[in-house]
Amino acid sequence: MQSEITKKYDKRAEAVNSLLCVGLDADIAKLPKKFKSLPNPQFEFNKWIIEQTHEYVAAFKPNSAFYEARGNQGIKELKMTMDYLIKNHPTIFTILDAKRADIGNTNSGYVYSIFDWLGFDAMTLHPYLGSEALEPFLSRKDKCSIILAKTSNPGAGEFQDIKISEKETLWEHVANEVVNKWNTNGNLMMVVGATYPDDIAKARKIAGDMTFLVPGVGAQGGEVRDFVKKGINSKGRGLIINSARGIIFSSNPKKEAEKLRNEIRAFS
Amino acid sequence: MQSEITKKYDKRAEAVNSLLCVGLDADIAKLPKKFKSLPNPQFEFNKWIIEQTHEYVAAFKPNSAFYEARGNQGIKELKMTMDYLIKNHPTIFTILDAKRADIGNTNSGYVYSIFDWLGFDAMTLHPYLGSEALEPFLSRKDKCSIILAKTSNPGAGEFQDIKISEKETLWEHVANEVVNKWNTNGNLMMVVGATYPDDIAKARKIAGDMTFLVPGVGAQGGEVRDFVKKGINSKGRGLIINSARGIIFSSNPKKEAEKLRNEIRAFS
Repeated sequence: MQSEITKKYDKRAEAVNSLLCVGLDADIAKLPKKFKSLPNPQFEFNKWIIEQTHEYVAAFKPNSAFYEARGNQGIKELKMTMDYLIKNHPTIFTILDAKRADIGNTNSGYVYSIFDWLGFDAMTLHPYLGSEALEPFLSRKDKCSIILAKTSNPGAGEFQDIKISEKETLWEHVANEVVNKWNTNGNLMMVVGATYPDDIAKARKIAGDMTFLVPGVGAQGGEVRDFVKKGINSKGRGLIINSARGIIFSSNPKKEAEKLRNEIRAFS
Repeated sequence: MQSEITKKYDKRAEAVNSLLCVGLDADIAKLPKKFKSLPNPQFEFNKWIIEQTHEYVAAFKPNSAFYEARGNQGIKELKMTMDYLIKNHPTIFTILDAKRADIGNTNSGYVYSIFDWLGFDAMTLHPYLGSEALEPFLSRKDKCSIILAKTSNPGAGEFQDIKISEKETLWEHVANEVVNKWNTNGNLMMVVGATYPDDIAKARKIAGDMTFLVPGVGAQGGEVRDFVKKGINSKGRGLIINSARGIIFSSNPKKEAEKLRNEIRAFS
């Protein structure tokens, strides 16, 4: 059964008829000049991107690395971004791409900072330590944990594609465990990269209607038609399609967001 | 060949004749009352622990989660802790237990924040995305990357102990890759939990003289005699033995640090 938090994404995707997620990867080195001179440049840039693109998006996903790169000031601006989003666009699904995972109790620090203090709906997690270690994330029924299954990077297969049995690779095994054993609260999703469309098709067979976060579109080269056709679920949704650089650092983020939203729509 | 940065640990371990690492896991909820009322409680607590224990330690290892739990203020106090350590005890090896790993360029944010801005000698990394993704960490010859091989948590085996071939489990394969393919700069170490002493023995066979970060001592139950005998390298070192709660929240951190240092010494 689906939890309220994963339904939040579906409702928003339905309301705006979009599966687009805009990656708020506000790399300070790449910000337009006019933002760089402001006191809170990453926040001001994000606010602008949010206002330019929100009508086309079902989700926003900052990657934590771009904020941590600026130390405590970056974390402050990430918090300002979330305060702004929660106040002004509370129906949009929010994901922190933090790729965390520590052991047992130590994870409570991440649970608190990302789910409670910053207020994200969801965060991404490494599976390597197993479900026992991830319990503090998984047991938060009001929040969504997104487990890395097949990532979008060129070298993803080094461990993920290892055949662990006649019938399964490591990532397929991770996906099977997440779907069939870990998801007792109905609050889980998985990462499957747009750069491996055949694996999206396999993941869809494993996962029923579970939603996938799909990075690797645009700048990383994933073809929209291919992975949307292969990844869509029985309800015509089930994908959170993330694009960051290709939208936020384009000359016209609004237009680029609308364009990708339309492209996705045409194939879903 | 060993890099200068991994030699830094060996030199310190030799100078103080200790393989002890104190975990600066300054969980705000567990701090003694007298620190809680100060303006920078985690920093003040760490400063006290550092002064109580430094003569017995070869390394200090804060876990990032305990600082992130306090938002930008926690990050500020982590930075203050590192500034203090670098100024007053520059020969002690410093590790941020951050368990990071993102794809390619995104990792540059973590490289900058942890190695350059905070100034740590080393950080811990998840292997799941493969060496291609981790390149921005691995290529920093002046810094040390510590790859999770076999972690200390009770459920570590869920994926790590999967047999991927006749001769190897997943974690052994990760260890083999790290030792034989990834370590071209001589700047890598691995995590092997004290709670699995037989696996420490296997890891030592795979790794030659590579140094292991060993969590799970004390509060997590790893027996000192057992894993030290099995993990020590041909030079009588090769272990960074971490204890956090058992020392820093004891009634006498100085005495507990000395005691564990002596216990390790007796078996190494």
